[in-house]
Amino acid sequence: MLIKSIFTIKGHICKSLLSPQTSSRASLALNLLRAYSSDSKMSKRALIFLAPGYEELEFISAVDILRRAGIDVSIAGIPDKNPVLSARNVAIVPDISLSEAFNAGTFDVLLLPGGLGGSKAMAESEEVGKLLKDQEANGRKVAAICAAPTALKAHCIGTGKKVTSYPAMAAAMKEGGTYDYKEDDVVVDGNLITSRGPGTATKFALTVVKELLGEEKACEIAKAMLIKF
Amino acid sequence: MLIKSIFTIKGHICKSLLSPQTSSRASLALNLLRAYSSDSKMSKRALIFLAPGYEELEFISAVDILRRAGIDVSIAGIPDKNPVLSARNVAIVPDISLSEAFNAGTFDVLLLPGGLGGSKAMAESEEVGKLLKDQEANGRKVAAICAAPTALKAHCIGTGKKVTSYPAMAAAMKEGGTYDYKEDDVVVDGNLITSRGPGTATKFALTVVKELLGEEKACEIAKAMLIKF
Repeated sequence: MLIKSIFTIKGHICKSLLSPQTSSRASLALNLLRAYSSDSKMSKRALIFLAPGYEELEFISAVDILRRAGIDVSIAGIPDKNPVLSARNVAIVPDISLSEAFNAGTFDVLLLPGGLGGSKAMAESEEVGKLLKDQEANGRKVAAICAAPTALKAHCIGTGKKVTSYPAMAAAMKEGGTYDYKEDDVVVDGNLITSRGPGTATKFALTVVKELLGEEKACEIAKAMLIKF
Repeated sequence: MLIKSIFTIKGHICKSLLSPQTSSRASLALNLLRAYSSDSKMSKRALIFLAPGYEELEFISAVDILRRAGIDVSIAGIPDKNPVLSARNVAIVPDISLSEAFNAGTFDVLLLPGGLGGSKAMAESEEVGKLLKDQEANGRKVAAICAAPTALKAHCIGTGKKVTSYPAMAAAMKEGGTYDYKEDDVVVDGNLITSRGPGTATKFALTVVKELLGEEKACEIAKAMLIKF
């Protein structure tokens, strides 16, 4: 007869089937170690915020491309799990609510799509701020596009780093000298990935894939989607 | 006191405020004529199908770009108004059901996003076939991208015209010599607009805008979205 033990490592639920003979503390610790060391081979996890007024193309490019790459994507609705309206009234149903995101384990990347309304909502959300600060403090990735880098600034994320944003947000991002502002389509500085707008959304999402899973995977996805990358 | 009369012309609900003095049959006919002649200045209308398994980026690029251009877009859910799951499990809530589309007046363009599941569902839908045949018979536009041109073929739409599709669908599209197959990103032949895949989705949607509202409007939208067009 087998005894099933379930434990959580780095946000992943790991199931281990142990025989009675090996169900000692030592073997449990061994299994824990094995699961931990193989963590890099486990599916990467992304949390994508869905806030009222999000830019449709920026949101969906991220979900589409990250899921094609095999990344485990959770869409967190702000404020809750009800359908969220985009800047142009497309209603999308989130996977989880923002508060559920706190109990969903850790994510390899938190991704903030743009859109004026969505970015304002993320900038004003204390919960988004907490998740971002925890993400940064633990050396994990944050990605924001278009107007969303202003939400990073509102929560004091990525201070001193190279960033970009939608051109109309450049002045707000430059103000106070918080960042080293660039005008490239996508800017990567350590764990921070930023980009400019709908026209750079696929390149942005592919860069997130590249940073998490390598260039080969990003190029494979781009090729299947007929995107030059 | 004013008498409100409501009448429908070419699918648009027109409200006319008439005084009792002018509420004769003659003046009604005159107002009808005025509304009809000014129809070209009225908002263009698009119906975009949302079928289970749709390709996310192709669907949302069309909605985003057409609505930015001021086109009145209705999202028709297949089979009904419940949230429809994409190829990668994004749940989007349609504006209307497919059967409601029959009573929603005429549309300047019917647009079919790709995705294997979505294209199969559209190919198998008698209602989609009826809408497409009516659209073609009345000289109005049809647009399809990626795998969706196979749904056009299933309903015998655009026979003899130049078309393109996702490369993997080229053989199926060429079979039987129904079409003059091309490999351009976007192919326009009369009222038929076809395109290749997610990587050509914004160019496809901008071409639909160009065909309906002119190049200037398409370029204005592209510029605001940081898209080269």
